[in-house]
Amino acid sequence: MTVTDHPRYDTRLDRYVDSYAQRTNGMRVSAVRALFAVANRPEIVSLAGGMPNIKDLPLGDIADSMAEMIRTRGTQVMQYGSGQGEPELREQILDVMALEGIVAHPDDLVITAGSQQGLDLVTRIFCDPGDVVLAESPSYVGALGTFLSYQVEVVHVPSDDQGLDPVALVETIARVKAAGKRIKFLYTIPNYNNPSGVTQSARRRLDIVAACRAAGVLVVEDNPYGLLALDAEPIPAMRSAADDVIYLGSFSKTFAPGFRVGWVLAPHAVREKLVLAQESATLCPPVFSQFAISNYLANHDWKGQVVVFRDMYRGRRDAMLSALEEEMPPGTSWTRPAGGFFVWVTLPEGLDSQAMLPRGVDARVAFVPGSAFYADGQGARNVRLSFCFPPAERIEVGVQRFAEVVRRELDMMDIFGVHSPAPIEPHRPAGPGPDLS
Amino acid sequence: MTVTDHPRYDTRLDRYVDSYAQRTNGMRVSAVRALFAVANRPEIVSLAGGMPNIKDLPLGDIADSMAEMIRTRGTQVMQYGSGQGEPELREQILDVMALEGIVAHPDDLVITAGSQQGLDLVTRIFCDPGDVVLAESPSYVGALGTFLSYQVEVVHVPSDDQGLDPVALVETIARVKAAGKRIKFLYTIPNYNNPSGVTQSARRRLDIVAACRAAGVLVVEDNPYGLLALDAEPIPAMRSAADDVIYLGSFSKTFAPGFRVGWVLAPHAVREKLVLAQESATLCPPVFSQFAISNYLANHDWKGQVVVFRDMYRGRRDAMLSALEEEMPPGTSWTRPAGGFFVWVTLPEGLDSQAMLPRGVDARVAFVPGSAFYADGQGARNVRLSFCFPPAERIEVGVQRFAEVVRRELDMMDIFGVHSPAPIEPHRPAGPGPDLS
Repeated sequence: MTVTDHPRYDTRLDRYVDSYAQRTNGMRVSAVRALFAVANRPEIVSLAGGMPNIKDLPLGDIADSMAEMIRTRGTQVMQYGSGQGEPELREQILDVMALEGIVAHPDDLVITAGSQQGLDLVTRIFCDPGDVVLAESPSYVGALGTFLSYQVEVVHVPSDDQGLDPVALVETIARVKAAGKRIKFLYTIPNYNNPSGVTQSARRRLDIVAACRAAGVLVVEDNPYGLLALDAEPIPAMRSAADDVIYLGSFSKTFAPGFRVGWVLAPHAVREKLVLAQESATLCPPVFSQFAISNYLANHDWKGQVVVFRDMYRGRRDAMLSALEEEMPPGTSWTRPAGGFFVWVTLPEGLDSQAMLPRGVDARVAFVPGSAFYADGQGARNVRLSFCFPPAERIEVGVQRFAEVVRRELDMMDIFGVHSPAPIEPHRPAGPGPDLS
Repeated sequence: MTVTDHPRYDTRLDRYVDSYAQRTNGMRVSAVRALFAVANRPEIVSLAGGMPNIKDLPLGDIADSMAEMIRTRGTQVMQYGSGQGEPELREQILDVMALEGIVAHPDDLVITAGSQQGLDLVTRIFCDPGDVVLAESPSYVGALGTFLSYQVEVVHVPSDDQGLDPVALVETIARVKAAGKRIKFLYTIPNYNNPSGVTQSARRRLDIVAACRAAGVLVVEDNPYGLLALDAEPIPAMRSAADDVIYLGSFSKTFAPGFRVGWVLAPHAVREKLVLAQESATLCPPVFSQFAISNYLANHDWKGQVVVFRDMYRGRRDAMLSALEEEMPPGTSWTRPAGGFFVWVTLPEGLDSQAMLPRGVDARVAFVPGSAFYADGQGARNVRLSFCFPPAERIEVGVQRFAEVVRRELDMMDIFGVHSPAPIEPHRPAGPGPDLS
């Protein structure tokens, strides 16, 4: 049968509305999401997505070595596997983490279906409804969506151009505790933060770990971009200085995201709970994917490939920063990321980035409004621009269009006074979808 | 660095014991699990596992077509994908489900990381702590583990050799409702049930759907073994007669489990919630795996391969049933499955299968005690034997050893009176691990 000849049965009305779990109240399609469907048209320059550019991977070589793997180990790589993840990949991940100063034991690693699942499982084992998770200002939209789906209250900690502020962290912890709430962990992306592009200084990392330890708050360090340092060498991971940090890693940006392989490194007792949660969630993480990555690490120059990726992303970042310098009207500021995928723009006072998005799409440029990266309504003047996917020439065109939209907004504000936001429903972080990852 | 030269840091004591979410109380390592580590020794015949036997797959052909896929579509198949799953695979799944009489729309399918994740996401969107899920007696251990991890109360519905009893179902629903509890859904495996091997008759399927509909209880139909009919053609799926049944499908038994690809077919409103839950859990299901399966369905004789699998499993089932007939002492009974992987044995009165397991391992045969498949302590006299993985000769040896263990237990009972169970902690279903899948 085909799609078209099937009589569409009437299940559009939600008969189940009274049956859903309370946690589904935290799972809402954002108003922003609908616009992204439109934003996928080819004439639009998307500075919205977080997709890595993987076209430089040696596909022919990968094809050959994967075929060899299937021929020689097919019945193993296509079979059920360990709930914790394959031992040989866990050994190899130790070498990857060693590049950021982490010394660990393969027993304390759990492989996950991307680091998003790592975050889901960590939240699952620690958070009851009403618990508090602390996060940077701003923080990763996909993490906020996961926390909300577990009915967790997210409290943002003030952050600046060196990342999360340790003094503000201590104050925030005290305030939340005084309100009688239980803080389960701090969620942080210390390297090239998504969305801000900011990197925590080495000093701050130590101060943050010390402050959390003193308060009995776990630290969850999410580090998908760590090896994509575009200027200096990476700063050692928080986990390299503190065995009790829960560390989330990923192959999505250093190899390819389609395999959905990430990992959690956790203290031993926590790791046991994570494995039980993983088995209950999926029996075992994707086995074929794990062997595919293991095979890639063993048989290809993966470190050389990371250098290729760095050079490519450096060119794109520089193109974006130059274009912003040339194009943006006065009163606009932005971060200068030393790695990763994202630049965080602060618009002149009075502008509303979410209200601007439809006008951006109309001008053939897409971006993510800053409010997506807050659980509490902040971010109206902010925009995340990503330089990872479009080539440099397209980035320049995109920034020109974006700047033109901002200039027009400023003109409108001059004429009509303070900008009034378009009638669009307030954004709530939700499952981000690949477009926002 | 290597494992051995790493100083083992002291994180064995669980400092986090007060930090975990309440739901982790439902996630416990079962006493049975520890024995399975021992049971993996090669001299032991394992009749415990649920691993499909995939050695007959055409590995060379699969290797070639996967390599071609990577060469020609590598940047697509290794990239992030849709949170709902790839459209071309969803179209192909319609053809798979059509073999069991299901007519559906690809919009109403969500791809999952194995059908275990389908079950996890369905439970996530429907179940608050304290809600009730109804299940067969006995029911799949991995499902029970997932329900417990969501703090769901499982109520078993009496079942017989035609599957779940519709009259008992109506009575159970009334009793649970009268106790003031909310029933969210009935979880059922109508074809070749895991663990009982029993198949629901066509008549009963209709009665069960009607009873649930009348009571406002959703039906979740889990059908991993449906195409592995070993005698007659499969009975049409429950979903084929009722659009409001939530259907879980899997490629783990008809192709290979290592890709971790299953699916949920759900009414449209439910499907939307499932996609949001999927994005929050993993961003998107494994993309490479989806394309690998899509490629297999398109370029290989997958239906012919299912016939090969059927013939192979039929031989193993027949070997197991013959051996049971020859070997088992009087007072033992067992099911005669028309498909799937499992035979369900009922031991003579007075025996305890969990207490027998260490003696089984000692006699070099492993099995799963029946209590694993109940949330309420039933099943002491039952054992699940699987015929899927070992070849026929090994199955015969395994059944001989199993029968010998039973005979010795009976002798002991004759000598010492009623059997007293060994001091082993009561089993609770937990994440099953691949050994129990």
